[in-house]
Amino acid sequence: MTKTNPGNFFEDFKVGQVLRHATPRTVTEGDRAAYGALYPTRFAVPSSVEFAASVGLSPAPVEELVAFHIAFGKTVPDVSLNAVANLGYAECRFHRPVVTGDTISTQSEVIGLKQNSNGKTGVVYVRSTATNQRGEIVLDWARWVMVRKRDADAPAPEPVVPQLAPFVDADDLVVPAGLDFNAYDFAAAGEPHRWDDYEVGEKIDHVDGVTLTDPEHMLATRLWQNTAKVHFSTEARPDGTRLVYGGHVISLARALSFNGLANAQLIAAINAGAHTAPALAGDTVYAWSEVLDKAAPAAWEGSGVGAIRLRLVATKGRDESMTLRGDDGRYAPGVLLDLDCWALVPR
Amino acid sequence: MTKTNPGNFFEDFKVGQVLRHATPRTVTEGDRAAYGALYPTRFAVPSSVEFAASVGLSPAPVEELVAFHIAFGKTVPDVSLNAVANLGYAECRFHRPVVTGDTISTQSEVIGLKQNSNGKTGVVYVRSTATNQRGEIVLDWARWVMVRKRDADAPAPEPVVPQLAPFVDADDLVVPAGLDFNAYDFAAAGEPHRWDDYEVGEKIDHVDGVTLTDPEHMLATRLWQNTAKVHFSTEARPDGTRLVYGGHVISLARALSFNGLANAQLIAAINAGAHTAPALAGDTVYAWSEVLDKAAPAAWEGSGVGAIRLRLVATKGRDESMTLRGDDGRYAPGVLLDLDCWALVPR
Amino acid sequence: MTKTNPGNFFEDFKVGQVLRHATPRTVTEGDRAAYGALYPTRFAVPSSVEFAASVGLSPAPVEELVAFHIAFGKTVPDVSLNAVANLGYAECRFHRPVVTGDTISTQSEVIGLKQNSNGKTGVVYVRSTATNQRGEIVLDWARWVMVRKRDADAPAPEPVVPQLAPFVDADDLVVPAGLDFNAYDFAAAGEPHRWDDYEVGEKIDHVDGVTLTDPEHMLATRLWQNTAKVHFSTEARPDGTRLVYGGHVISLARALSFNGLANAQLIAAINAGAHTAPALAGDTVYAWSEVLDKAAPAAWEGSGVGAIRLRLVATKGRDESMTLRGDDGRYAPGVLLDLDCWALVPR
Repeated sequence: MTKTNPGNFFEDFKVGQVLRHATPRTVTEGDRAAYGALYPTRFAVPSSVEFAASVGLSPAPVEELVAFHIAFGKTVPDVSLNAVANLGYAECRFHRPVVTGDTISTQSEVIGLKQNSNGKTGVVYVRSTATNQRGEIVLDWARWVMVRKRDADAPAPEPVVPQLAPFVDADDLVVPAGLDFNAYDFAAAGEPHRWDDYEVGEKIDHVDGVTLTDPEHMLATRLWQNTAKVHFSTEARPDGTRLVYGGHVISLARALSFNGLANAQLIAAINAGAHTAPALAGDTVYAWSEVLDKAAPAAWEGSGVGAIRLRLVATKGRDESMTLRGDDGRYAPGVLLDLDCWALVPR
Repeated sequence: MTKTNPGNFFEDFKVGQVLRHATPRTVTEGDRAAYGALYPTRFAVPSSVEFAASVGLSPAPVEELVAFHIAFGKTVPDVSLNAVANLGYAECRFHRPVVTGDTISTQSEVIGLKQNSNGKTGVVYVRSTATNQRGEIVLDWARWVMVRKRDADAPAPEPVVPQLAPFVDADDLVVPAGLDFNAYDFAAAGEPHRWDDYEVGEKIDHVDGVTLTDPEHMLATRLWQNTAKVHFSTEARPDGTRLVYGGHVISLARALSFNGLANAQLIAAINAGAHTAPALAGDTVYAWSEVLDKAAPAAWEGSGVGAIRLRLVATKGRDESMTLRGDDGRYAPGVLLDLDCWALVPR
Repeated sequence: MTKTNPGNFFEDFKVGQVLRHATPRTVTEGDRAAYGALYPTRFAVPSSVEFAASVGLSPAPVEELVAFHIAFGKTVPDVSLNAVANLGYAECRFHRPVVTGDTISTQSEVIGLKQNSNGKTGVVYVRSTATNQRGEIVLDWARWVMVRKRDADAPAPEPVVPQLAPFVDADDLVVPAGLDFNAYDFAAAGEPHRWDDYEVGEKIDHVDGVTLTDPEHMLATRLWQNTAKVHFSTEARPDGTRLVYGGHVISLARALSFNGLANAQLIAAINAGAHTAPALAGDTVYAWSEVLDKAAPAAWEGSGVGAIRLRLVATKGRDESMTLRGDDGRYAPGVLLDLDCWALVPR
């Protein structure tokens, strides 16, 4: 019997099945430093224990995307080792900040299955939940991925397609316990812009670009224990390129967005995400954002916290026109990432 | 007088001489994160403080190879700065886990000397011992290396060739204090395979490949304060390539071996190691293992711990036939590393 | 209104103006490890908590250059985003060691302004001060930089050129509280050379070279939250190269200087620094030092501490002749960095 993990094929998944993923992973100050070396992030909360404490968060959390990447990476060996394509994610909520010393474990429940008409592949829907060492939920999200069948003759399962929300309702966003933006130090944070200053429909060109290199995206992807071979080996894809992990582009765009969104301190939810083109070493990545919505739920009264819903777009090459789609409705050339998220900002 | 270190030449070594190496080095959580960024490791014990505690190890140790690389790196300026070739090592035992905060110091005793017939070089045998801040032995090993003579006319020393064991006797392996695999969580660890499931003679193809890059091996090698110039400078070797530190290949192969050996949680000994070909940036490294032996010393009764002796082979390019040597008895083309070690697994 | 930071132009600066820089940054063990992966440093004090404690420093400080780079990086968005050239720095003093957990904040005061005769640019002089979370000064330094005007027609300010000392007076150097080199362990530190062994005028060739790579200098520069785009994007400079951050060359030269200056444990001051040529990926960097002066202020009596003033020179390609300037008085070809600093060594 082979001892290596062949991964699950489409016919191995059953609706209701729960997959407990290896390996639990403790977050450390080393991760915080590595994250800061890999991405040009300058957000004050994860950068400074003093600033974090001044807004009620002590110990200081690491960036939400650290938790996201770790949790996501764990699902790869069980969910997407035989994936043809990552189709999307939705309903990702960050329930509580992750601090150093926390150990993250992840499990997934299969919530949908639909074989493709070609009979060779199918779409698997999972809801994944990451918990800390106290069993508290850190984040959860839904994801759907196209997976190969081992045996094209295996019977198709009853199709089950879950209803996923187009975005997380603002009333369902979690404001971390203790978060209070009333004494927010705008000078220390780097920009004066408040919740009131952002308008729905406003677009922000984040200006700076970063050229991707293979060693950097490999270091990042390994850090999250994501072992999908297309990221690491020049022998895994026909053209010999190493595909950049989509999460690397997310983190890069998020970090670049500091310039204009320095006060979007915390990510509360990822509503949707599409990786619209492959990113490769040599590509210079830029970012722009659009304010899609704003919310200040009554329950947050007094905290000084508001939410803005952002479309965060990463592009290959700078597009000062900030065009998402062409006249044909398709993504404009150069668009690498279209991410819809909620961020928490001071009012 | 020059103030820079010229290193020791063959005639500088005397049998019985003790070399105290600089620089003591404290291990931190930063090292754990850096290791995880550099190698695709997912072993549960060094990855999770919770998992480590569940098997009796608290605080959580770092990977044994972190200690090995640090200790080994310290010996370079005194032992192998003028080396022509690293010929081998043997009798490497890990005496106790290294945890963050431990400070590692290393010293070496010259245990053998033999001038080569060409009169220009000689083989130096040392036994190196790494200790922690309490003076406890962390690991020790023997190593032999071919070193240049400063002066070809210097007289040859009396040849002394130490008798080194072909492998560490299972009864001499150290099970870390407190280690107890009875409540081992196989799902969290990632694979169901126990000591009983591995058979002597069994081979495991670890499937995945990683393409080497110069920045990554340099970051790794520096982290261990190993300053041998062939790893860092394009001006050190005639062809302008930077030679990958052999230990980088060991760590990479060990990490790749997770896929099939996820429960080989701890390395207890390195019996022998041969770096059979140079590794360079651009090479895609794969690994396979062979189970050479199994042991469960009576003294370990009740701990749930067994040992398997493994040949861990790294190759340039994947060799699904897992061929170590050709019909001529020489290493097969593509073999980079032939490492013989003992690992501790749950019974 | 645009929300991104356009940076300050020459006419935005006023003498006496105080700029409070974002983002406060907490130093962690992750930074220490990252520093050790990026630079071949082996100095015993920042490497070992045990060694540091043995000379009176507990907890163990990180390298002074960690603090320097973090503090310097903070000034970039406000001071040098529209810089044409970094002209120099002076009077940099390290007031107290930075230990992990310290949070560094930086502010700058404009101390001079002088428009250039072309009317398009001007020189801005600032004194920057980095403080820790207790408001204690960690380091301060003066710097002058040539900055573009937004509007060439803006009136020239009254020229103010501050008088800066050619070097910090030895009596003004700060010996960290508690530092005591009387029980200094030279074997652990790696070299036997004391203060007495260094002679004014002596030059030391540090021998080893390191070839620069783009990923490494980008990781380093990001770690310090320095976001100057010429370091990160192939689209920022006409020839598509990424300029290596000058501080990367300083840290590299400092680390290489271990070989011959292993006991120059702490940097007490940077008197002057000139980046005399751009450094790029592919360049192999070497270093040499010249002892410019020695001092042992009476106030240090009994501490076992002396100071040596060093010229630390980084070169592209090794120059065993250690030539700083040609007969024409200009920097010799290959010189990248000419740094004048004070270091603390055991007497």
